[in-house]
Amino acid sequence: MPEKYSSLLARLHTLNDLQKSIAVLQWDRETNMPPQGNSGRTQQITTLTQLAHEIGTSNEMGELLAAAEAELIDADYDSTEASLLRYVRRQYDEERKFSSDFVRRRSEVTGAAGFAWAQARAQNDFASFAPHLQAAVGIAQESAEILGYEDEKYDALLNQYERGMKTKDVRAIFEKVKRETVPLIHAISAQRDAVDDSFLFQSFDVDAQKKLARYAAESIGYDFTRGHLGQVEHPFSTSFGRNDVRITTRFNPEFANSALFATLHEAGHALYEKGVGEELERTPLAQGTSSGIHESQSRLFENQVGRSRGYWDAHFSKLQAHFPQQMGRIDTEKFYRAINKVQPSFIRVEADELTYNMHIILRFELEQALINGDLSVADLPAAWNEKMQTLLGITPPDDTQGVLQDVHWSMAAFGYFPTYTLGNLYAALFMETARSHDAQIVAELARGETATLLAWLRNNIHRHGSKYDAPELCQRATGQTLSADPFVRYVREKFGGIYALE
Amino acid sequence: MPEKYSSLLARLHTLNDLQKSIAVLQWDRETNMPPQGNSGRTQQITTLTQLAHEIGTSNEMGELLAAAEAELIDADYDSTEASLLRYVRRQYDEERKFSSDFVRRRSEVTGAAGFAWAQARAQNDFASFAPHLQAAVGIAQESAEILGYEDEKYDALLNQYERGMKTKDVRAIFEKVKRETVPLIHAISAQRDAVDDSFLFQSFDVDAQKKLARYAAESIGYDFTRGHLGQVEHPFSTSFGRNDVRITTRFNPEFANSALFATLHEAGHALYEKGVGEELERTPLAQGTSSGIHESQSRLFENQVGRSRGYWDAHFSKLQAHFPQQMGRIDTEKFYRAINKVQPSFIRVEADELTYNMHIILRFELEQALINGDLSVADLPAAWNEKMQTLLGITPPDDTQGVLQDVHWSMAAFGYFPTYTLGNLYAALFMETARSHDAQIVAELARGETATLLAWLRNNIHRHGSKYDAPELCQRATGQTLSADPFVRYVREKFGGIYALE
Repeated sequence: MPEKYSSLLARLHTLNDLQKSIAVLQWDRETNMPPQGNSGRTQQITTLTQLAHEIGTSNEMGELLAAAEAELIDADYDSTEASLLRYVRRQYDEERKFSSDFVRRRSEVTGAAGFAWAQARAQNDFASFAPHLQAAVGIAQESAEILGYEDEKYDALLNQYERGMKTKDVRAIFEKVKRETVPLIHAISAQRDAVDDSFLFQSFDVDAQKKLARYAAESIGYDFTRGHLGQVEHPFSTSFGRNDVRITTRFNPEFANSALFATLHEAGHALYEKGVGEELERTPLAQGTSSGIHESQSRLFENQVGRSRGYWDAHFSKLQAHFPQQMGRIDTEKFYRAINKVQPSFIRVEADELTYNMHIILRFELEQALINGDLSVADLPAAWNEKMQTLLGITPPDDTQGVLQDVHWSMAAFGYFPTYTLGNLYAALFMETARSHDAQIVAELARGETATLLAWLRNNIHRHGSKYDAPELCQRATGQTLSADPFVRYVREKFGGIYALE
Repeated sequence: MPEKYSSLLARLHTLNDLQKSIAVLQWDRETNMPPQGNSGRTQQITTLTQLAHEIGTSNEMGELLAAAEAELIDADYDSTEASLLRYVRRQYDEERKFSSDFVRRRSEVTGAAGFAWAQARAQNDFASFAPHLQAAVGIAQESAEILGYEDEKYDALLNQYERGMKTKDVRAIFEKVKRETVPLIHAISAQRDAVDDSFLFQSFDVDAQKKLARYAAESIGYDFTRGHLGQVEHPFSTSFGRNDVRITTRFNPEFANSALFATLHEAGHALYEKGVGEELERTPLAQGTSSGIHESQSRLFENQVGRSRGYWDAHFSKLQAHFPQQMGRIDTEKFYRAINKVQPSFIRVEADELTYNMHIILRFELEQALINGDLSVADLPAAWNEKMQTLLGITPPDDTQGVLQDVHWSMAAFGYFPTYTLGNLYAALFMETARSHDAQIVAELARGETATLLAWLRNNIHRHGSKYDAPELCQRATGQTLSADPFVRYVREKFGGIYALE
């Protein structure tokens, strides 16, 4: 191995180990830590984060990087070496732009805003959160200026989560989604009673749910010798390296679907991280390339696979075996329809596959307006409710079920929301491509099997880790740029069938 | 706060957070990590350990320390500041003695020896372990030379775990234990059938055992808002700070006592760490002062409390409620006698309260001989078996149940074993002192309560953390130096009663 590159790599390994250690500390906080452990844990995470930041932005790192770049100036674009140097250069230059004063201020603002948000949501008191949200918007605007942008400020923010994507392109794609989805939702709303999902809301033994969650994860290829399922309040997945990628779920004793689909969702994320090429291990390339691509893998397994008729043809009997009383007299078709019921609702994380994107488009439009200064924080709740009415035909009864429901803005994470819908759209595009690529995939999916699909995903997406930005990865995997069309085709066919639309 | 001292403290906090993060990584490895996660986890632990070592032995640390020492030269001996400076100075000077070449070699030798030991034990093949053990002895001898000693080489090793204690003093104390215990064991062996413990070996539901373990931990004051009980193969306790001190236990479906007493033992360790003074938090003083004192706290709660008649007068009905079939027709006296049955056996960790020390004295004598060069590794198995015969009247059928049973020597941890018996002796001394100090403690223990005892331990032992070495702490807490007498009095009375010895 080239000498300078090898020295850089050793430093990147140290950095990687620090970052993965932080991930373990965070995982443990959510899954096992006793309540009084939090203050010590925050100190540990802060200390390791500072050490990682010091190493990552040090002059020494800059020198190692420059030396390796000079040494490998002729490396092939697709090689691990060239890809890693591209990635680290960009990361290094970007992180060096933020002064330690700004990093400290950002951490103070979001720390206070997170606390204020939790209280405001609990008490339905937007006014008490407003000044903190104002400060968070300010921090995001300042970030955008520090990072720089060509067309619009929001580009710089979006770029943090979905590198290489332009706001104007997202806007155009989302307009199409909106144009196609809103009439579909209206048509379905006209026959609201066509689907009965009342039997999903019963008592479900949590121990049986735990066994079912493991079964579901394994059913799509999640391997427990390289993983672990934890129990938490807000499900997430996390990777400590490709051979230890963990998932979590929550158990609602009155609604088994909550744990089941959260598990499939998180296992989809985890399959991505487990599939990263071994040669990228312990480098910053050993992770999903963007929030949107990551979400595409979770949505693909949660929805395109997990809410498909084929999957339940294969697995419904298992569900019945775990819950004979609750499911014994339900048939697969009735269950399939119930888990795909479309119904406008207030809370994003509880939304169905079709209305979900409306929740995102609403946030995407509002946060652009906030960042551009076209909308004041004071006018935000009214703007929220107005858009809910336009897009979904309902108005939240209070701010807790409206503008206060999500944590993201308190974290100044403007630019993150659109990646959820980008994930849905990528999932549809990848699925359409994979199916057209290999008849075996189609045949297997019809029997609830995913082995060949997973092999296609690994080969075209997972193994590359962060070597390519999302648009480039998409082009390589599908020969296309992202559009709303595959998603529109997918939902028209699926919901057209369920609701017998013409 | 004095300026230089404050700078030193900030650096010690960083070091502490790194070390506690390592503890979290280790805890997670034992409790949750999937099998294939081990190689990545080893890298993470190695990296953090290196970072901690670099910071701890840096010139910068030396300068901060010297500046703080000069600033606080007049600080009161008992103050946190003076105690911390004493501790850090000693630690710093000692760690600087080890070259990075030696540290690397030690890590290689013990890494290979640990692996070889596990295999050798599984295959009852001492010969394959012998060269690794030879290397581990060599590393320990080298350590002793690096650290330095006055009287004998073993002092330097013992000092790593039990600072301030001389080998010759331990030898004298252990001789007394041996002299008094061996005849007692002989007398008891003559009436082996006086105690029936056969009913302890039955089927015990593991979920019920888990509830009972939590109950047992809480019964002696372990607070789950500052703790957590994990399930492992080899029980241990660990502290991530005084408000997150965790315990673990193992569950044997055929023998409930295994989980029960391991839980009391680990909770005893944990109470010590939880009781460290708040003002010591995030410094190296925020931990138990020696292995022997630590073990005294676990043994005190496992044996002196947990195997007492008073404890089971209070709690036996709870055990019966969890296991009505197995325990419904047993009375408290029968249970009390069963859990105190004395019987020579091969495996240290399964030994009763009386024969346990013989296992330790055997190891203590053998490891001194190995370190001094009076015993060769080749002759070790025979020497082991001979001593087992002398001390306990039995000879192991194979090396797996003899010389190969413990991991310690593969880790080059010579000098550790004696601290187990020191723990038993300290426990007896502390208990005798506490009882004589406050009649309330005696009265409470007779009803299975430990609140006032715990308050005494906190005030006299726990809160000091590592401010004082064990001998000094003992003198302050009891007005005495350690001797075998309280332990001898304790076992004579207890086992004299159970076995109706004159």
